[in-house]
Amino acid sequence: MVKGRVCLAYSGGLDTSTILKWLIEEGYQVVCFLADVGQDEPWKQVEEKALKIGAEKMVILDLKKEFVEELCFRAIQCNASYEGTYLLGTSLARPVIARAQIKVAIENNCDSVSHGCTGKGNDQVRFELAFYTLQPTIKVIAPWRLPEFCEKFKGRQDLLEYAAEHGIPVTSTKAKPWSMDANLAHCSYEAGILEDPDKTPPEDVWTMTQSPQKAPDAPVDITIHFEKGIPVKVVTPEKSYTDSVELFIALNKLGFEHGIGRIDIVENRFIGLKSRGCYDSPAMTILRDAHRDLEGLVMDTAVRALRDQFVTHSWSYQLYNGMYFSPEREFTENSLVFSQRRVNGAVRLQLYKGGVYVLGRSSATEKLYSEEEASMDTLDNFSPMDTTGFIAIQSIRLKKYGLQKAEEGANLART
Amino acid sequence: MVKGRVCLAYSGGLDTSTILKWLIEEGYQVVCFLADVGQDEPWKQVEEKALKIGAEKMVILDLKKEFVEELCFRAIQCNASYEGTYLLGTSLARPVIARAQIKVAIENNCDSVSHGCTGKGNDQVRFELAFYTLQPTIKVIAPWRLPEFCEKFKGRQDLLEYAAEHGIPVTSTKAKPWSMDANLAHCSYEAGILEDPDKTPPEDVWTMTQSPQKAPDAPVDITIHFEKGIPVKVVTPEKSYTDSVELFIALNKLGFEHGIGRIDIVENRFIGLKSRGCYDSPAMTILRDAHRDLEGLVMDTAVRALRDQFVTHSWSYQLYNGMYFSPEREFTENSLVFSQRRVNGAVRLQLYKGGVYVLGRSSATEKLYSEEEASMDTLDNFSPMDTTGFIAIQSIRLKKYGLQKAEEGANLART
Amino acid sequence: MVKGRVCLAYSGGLDTSTILKWLIEEGYQVVCFLADVGQDEPWKQVEEKALKIGAEKMVILDLKKEFVEELCFRAIQCNASYEGTYLLGTSLARPVIARAQIKVAIENNCDSVSHGCTGKGNDQVRFELAFYTLQPTIKVIAPWRLPEFCEKFKGRQDLLEYAAEHGIPVTSTKAKPWSMDANLAHCSYEAGILEDPDKTPPEDVWTMTQSPQKAPDAPVDITIHFEKGIPVKVVTPEKSYTDSVELFIALNKLGFEHGIGRIDIVENRFIGLKSRGCYDSPAMTILRDAHRDLEGLVMDTAVRALRDQFVTHSWSYQLYNGMYFSPEREFTENSLVFSQRRVNGAVRLQLYKGGVYVLGRSSATEKLYSEEEASMDTLDNFSPMDTTGFIAIQSIRLKKYGLQKAEEGANLART
Amino acid sequence: MVKGRVCLAYSGGLDTSTILKWLIEEGYQVVCFLADVGQDEPWKQVEEKALKIGAEKMVILDLKKEFVEELCFRAIQCNASYEGTYLLGTSLARPVIARAQIKVAIENNCDSVSHGCTGKGNDQVRFELAFYTLQPTIKVIAPWRLPEFCEKFKGRQDLLEYAAEHGIPVTSTKAKPWSMDANLAHCSYEAGILEDPDKTPPEDVWTMTQSPQKAPDAPVDITIHFEKGIPVKVVTPEKSYTDSVELFIALNKLGFEHGIGRIDIVENRFIGLKSRGCYDSPAMTILRDAHRDLEGLVMDTAVRALRDQFVTHSWSYQLYNGMYFSPEREFTENSLVFSQRRVNGAVRLQLYKGGVYVLGRSSATEKLYSEEEASMDTLDNFSPMDTTGFIAIQSIRLKKYGLQKAEEGANLART
Repeated sequence: MVKGRVCLAYSGGLDTSTILKWLIEEGYQVVCFLADVGQDEPWKQVEEKALKIGAEKMVILDLKKEFVEELCFRAIQCNASYEGTYLLGTSLARPVIARAQIKVAIENNCDSVSHGCTGKGNDQVRFELAFYTLQPTIKVIAPWRLPEFCEKFKGRQDLLEYAAEHGIPVTSTKAKPWSMDANLAHCSYEAGILEDPDKTPPEDVWTMTQSPQKAPDAPVDITIHFEKGIPVKVVTPEKSYTDSVELFIALNKLGFEHGIGRIDIVENRFIGLKSRGCYDSPAMTILRDAHRDLEGLVMDTAVRALRDQFVTHSWSYQLYNGMYFSPEREFTENSLVFSQRRVNGAVRLQLYKGGVYVLGRSSATEKLYSEEEASMDTLDNFSPMDTTGFIAIQSIRLKKYGLQKAEEGANLART
Repeated sequence: MVKGRVCLAYSGGLDTSTILKWLIEEGYQVVCFLADVGQDEPWKQVEEKALKIGAEKMVILDLKKEFVEELCFRAIQCNASYEGTYLLGTSLARPVIARAQIKVAIENNCDSVSHGCTGKGNDQVRFELAFYTLQPTIKVIAPWRLPEFCEKFKGRQDLLEYAAEHGIPVTSTKAKPWSMDANLAHCSYEAGILEDPDKTPPEDVWTMTQSPQKAPDAPVDITIHFEKGIPVKVVTPEKSYTDSVELFIALNKLGFEHGIGRIDIVENRFIGLKSRGCYDSPAMTILRDAHRDLEGLVMDTAVRALRDQFVTHSWSYQLYNGMYFSPEREFTENSLVFSQRRVNGAVRLQLYKGGVYVLGRSSATEKLYSEEEASMDTLDNFSPMDTTGFIAIQSIRLKKYGLQKAEEGANLART
Repeated sequence: MVKGRVCLAYSGGLDTSTILKWLIEEGYQVVCFLADVGQDEPWKQVEEKALKIGAEKMVILDLKKEFVEELCFRAIQCNASYEGTYLLGTSLARPVIARAQIKVAIENNCDSVSHGCTGKGNDQVRFELAFYTLQPTIKVIAPWRLPEFCEKFKGRQDLLEYAAEHGIPVTSTKAKPWSMDANLAHCSYEAGILEDPDKTPPEDVWTMTQSPQKAPDAPVDITIHFEKGIPVKVVTPEKSYTDSVELFIALNKLGFEHGIGRIDIVENRFIGLKSRGCYDSPAMTILRDAHRDLEGLVMDTAVRALRDQFVTHSWSYQLYNGMYFSPEREFTENSLVFSQRRVNGAVRLQLYKGGVYVLGRSSATEKLYSEEEASMDTLDNFSPMDTTGFIAIQSIRLKKYGLQKAEEGANLART
Repeated sequence: MVKGRVCLAYSGGLDTSTILKWLIEEGYQVVCFLADVGQDEPWKQVEEKALKIGAEKMVILDLKKEFVEELCFRAIQCNASYEGTYLLGTSLARPVIARAQIKVAIENNCDSVSHGCTGKGNDQVRFELAFYTLQPTIKVIAPWRLPEFCEKFKGRQDLLEYAAEHGIPVTSTKAKPWSMDANLAHCSYEAGILEDPDKTPPEDVWTMTQSPQKAPDAPVDITIHFEKGIPVKVVTPEKSYTDSVELFIALNKLGFEHGIGRIDIVENRFIGLKSRGCYDSPAMTILRDAHRDLEGLVMDTAVRALRDQFVTHSWSYQLYNGMYFSPEREFTENSLVFSQRRVNGAVRLQLYKGGVYVLGRSSATEKLYSEEEASMDTLDNFSPMDTTGFIAIQSIRLKKYGLQKAEEGANLART
């Protein structure tokens, strides 16, 4: 009995291989899909494995360009971070992957999509909200939330046994005692031994950065050019890069070398649980620092304050919570893009043993900063007496506050 | 003719020495005041110089403890930063200095206060708004905004000549080509050659940090304990510190050694000018990173989001703009303190060549983080099927958005 | 077989009577609970009916005082409204009801609570989030979300038949073609014929207000006194009220008479559906208008702006979404209460045919408003020249914007 | 000696007539300018008077269309209000007037502009910030802030004597004991006897509304159609209006008749003083109520919440504070316009004795509201069991809060 056709997000690992087989056993036809968002995969082997297990087809799509340009660069324009620290690497990849998966599902006449996300994480929410928005009639099969599936597969041992029984090849490499997810923006490490928030991640956790302590003793200086807040050129001592994906990869490489972009946090998942996550995001860290610095030079202060408080905050939370395909993200991003019209210029940086240091910044086109005006040494076009009035007017209200406090018996001038 | 008594913020430098003499010549009696907020000063010599020039009295007050406890620690509780980067070192010192100066003015029957701030900077605003709030009837003499004074002293040369004429001792050390202001929280460097935002500050600018490149090759691991968001103990390999000022100084020393806390930005002054500032803030940087990390472990996510968006943002801008003694700062700080009731725990950090790395965090009292619950491996007390409902409900609204976009002809599933 | 003891929110109506009987048939012992939040009920008959159907016990608690003082007055201090219009009447009652129901459940050794809320509404969310927070181990039985119950009772007819079969008395009064929920703060009307958002509610919908067109031709003038933002006295031409519940009821009566407080909106439920609601909230409308007006006289402008943008907005959404017992409501309310310390004074109002008009306001204790200072006719203590400086400083940044726009070719001075 | 040419905002009243003469005496050539923003003026007589006193030229420009379309309708899209109440009538007119005055100044080779605003008000700030932004090199002559002018004219008597001496015609009508400013959006009343905030404005203050008590006993029903949040058609029992200015005037007339749009507040001026203002804004009140209601039907809830909290708040404050020509207003308005793309539909209203009542709303194009889905009676496409999961997930975090409070000894379930 054929139940329909499912598009399964398939990575070649034990979990999704099991799901693939299980779906087939349940009577589904399965089209497998794997997105290339810059991670390292044995692409050919994954495809062979999928077909061997019984997939009708394996579709692998290169999404690197759209991932970098539509998501990562937007995050850079936004100075995005979740809870002040996390650069959203996984959250940024989910929308492009979900979109491609729906496209593959539609093109292959699938009425369902499926994935291997666990029932406690953020990714299930991110994928499924995207699926439903992009194709409101789609059905989602989330095996790790199905009682019958969870009953059957209670631990890794059950999966291994099922694999053995069904001739699913299992890589002999011992699973690491944590889980990982990589893309161009970062690699994430969580679960397993990392669940103890006071345990320092062992050095071999990190894959996209070498240890700052092993980084070269000589710093490297680079320059990043932005147009409308988008990185358009990266100049390193060896070479210049202008292609979006190439410059991103070049920065990842430099960042790896110099140990840049490691973070280790306890974060709040959308579903209300706290969880410990470690991430290394070399290119994103470098680009974000450079972009934020440039904004100091070229952006109006009132616009920046509004953008920081509302756009940066909101966009970051929207992305984290899987609300990329939503009216509010569209609304917020419209503001973001508008705020970047004049973010043009170049930032010179030094990378050294885990650190990104700004050496200087300039803009050929933007003139909000003026050396003459800022100078404490000249008074051209500036009447210091004006400041007296400025202060006097501001103090009208504050004097009343001072009197009110005095009246309340609170001596503000107490030490 | 005696015009009245002025309390002058006096540092012993050329500017305020000139102002002191000029005030006396103008017919004022002058009481000099100097705050000890942790900077290095030849205290005795400053006093002698003041009296030699003609001050009635020189008052030096040690404000370190109130500075650290009332201002710096509040900033740490707040994760405060202005425009995402500047840790507010100068802004934090101004309120305690202004408060003490008003106290000295009142105790010495001064009807005016005076300072040597320039007419284009933030500090004049910060000082004077504080003065007027604390003592609404006070008069402020801001020589650098008085046409007659500015006319008389058009440049450094005029000041030097005046000093020579009036027997004001001038230190023979050549002035650095930038200006500095130090306190426990940081040292600031601006003006002069730093006004070119693309010129990297020469290495000898920095006084509170040695270069990361000269920092020891061996990292150091420390632990910082917080109670209600306040650092209460710092444990280093050599020693533990519990006194507020001592632990702060110890962190400054460690941070100096390991090159931690340098920033270089273009910022937006309150009066609407952009200006370039360089700052090194070792202790503040270390404490802020530790505090922010601990909040991940112990703070509710919704409270944290509200605190980040409203309290952290508002408090930081209030401090930067000189609004410490204001109803809105009092209002905002009330929220801040309330948010910190359960921020109890310890953070282990590694300091290494300019970087602060979190090694782990723990809390003996707080239990919002639960290893069991967060674990992807167990489902105790968690029904993954609930997430299906959670996602379904969230998607009701998003599906409508998807349909609306489709109707508009926008294919969200486009690549 | 006894399954355990349930505390059921029981109103005496057809739905909860059916649930009561069904629970008993399912093997539960049932303690019924009804909260008196000011609605009109045949209390004695409800109790008799509950016992007749088979409840072990019927508990009726008068929550009017805590409802008014802890919830309604907080909303007034907050100027709370959801989506700019809805005064939250239902949302305000839910927390006190849920709290009392949990108390009754605990006192009667119930391990479950139950309610008759539908599966698409806000109230189920509000009640259950409160239940779980107040008693994390409680079990909730929500029959209208149980497939077996929904299957059994597909429409009103099924309920009537079940009632007939089981001897459940049914009031002969024909059900109105909409649903209602009343408490001291308002009565709500929704569903049924009101689901067409373009259908004007028939006049007999409204129960807490008579039609403005039937209101007296003579206006009535009243005065409301506030302390710390809380209404402490209402003076009407006939009488003064100082008891919280009495003054609230007196205002409801006056508001009924003068047709005050009707609203008719399409709102967004927490679960993502839009729904049409009609509400009449006489006392809340009058008190909110008065409170908001008084704040103009006595509250600092910067605090008010922060309170409006963050506290009022957040608290209103928290209440609407059932997040009363939450860390974020506690956090927000702490700010709210702090903001009201000086909201002391009296507001004179006129009520006339649906409208509330402010006649004047005064405060014996607060002095932020000063007739002399506000006056355009005097310049005592005010130097108009200061404003020149104030404007000049503000214009520094704006002039740059003007130049930038000109450079972009945008002629701001175009008509 | 000719000092240059000034473009003076001239109304024909005693103040600006005096300023005109005084400027001429001071040696300026003066071009007078008067904007028609819908107020009632004896246009011809004003022109004759200007020329008689000595103006080179009198320019009168009709700005009604741009005022309504660029400012008033934007405010409607925004649901703008300052401090929750004031509909910004004066603030909205200032930008178009300032822009036209600068245009006239440029066309007539004026190097200065002048106005008759007092030194304590908002309008001087609004005008001058606009002047400086639109023409950064312009000079501003603000006589009421010039010491020599203020010295000369200390009160109305001085102005009258000067008028008599210089043959300036003075209208014999006795000045009202308050000041007024009218445009299409509203008329404002302040100062004089209104400075006592507890004095009810006498009935003859109001000019754009008759008293609700004199309004017709029969209500009138109208329909307002919106496209992208802009009113495009007003249907009254007599006639339909589609021209922007005509429909605005028609609503003002209806609003006058039915006594709609009076407010009386104490507000916070930008310069830090509290002041009492009375305003009647018939058309704005009606349009705002209608627009806000329509948004309930057609706008996504998350976008609405963001728009309310950030855009509505910010835009209103920007306008009030004279920041129309600013980067932040441009930034904010971009968001506003984006939010209105789907605000299409019609709202039926009833006007009755001071009140605006929504009778119903509909949209031919927007489908976010669905009667079937909202209905409590059907469960098509809705699985109530999903809500169980939704609630369960939301409660994860809240249960922890409940446990934490219990541990703190706070019994949340206390009454």
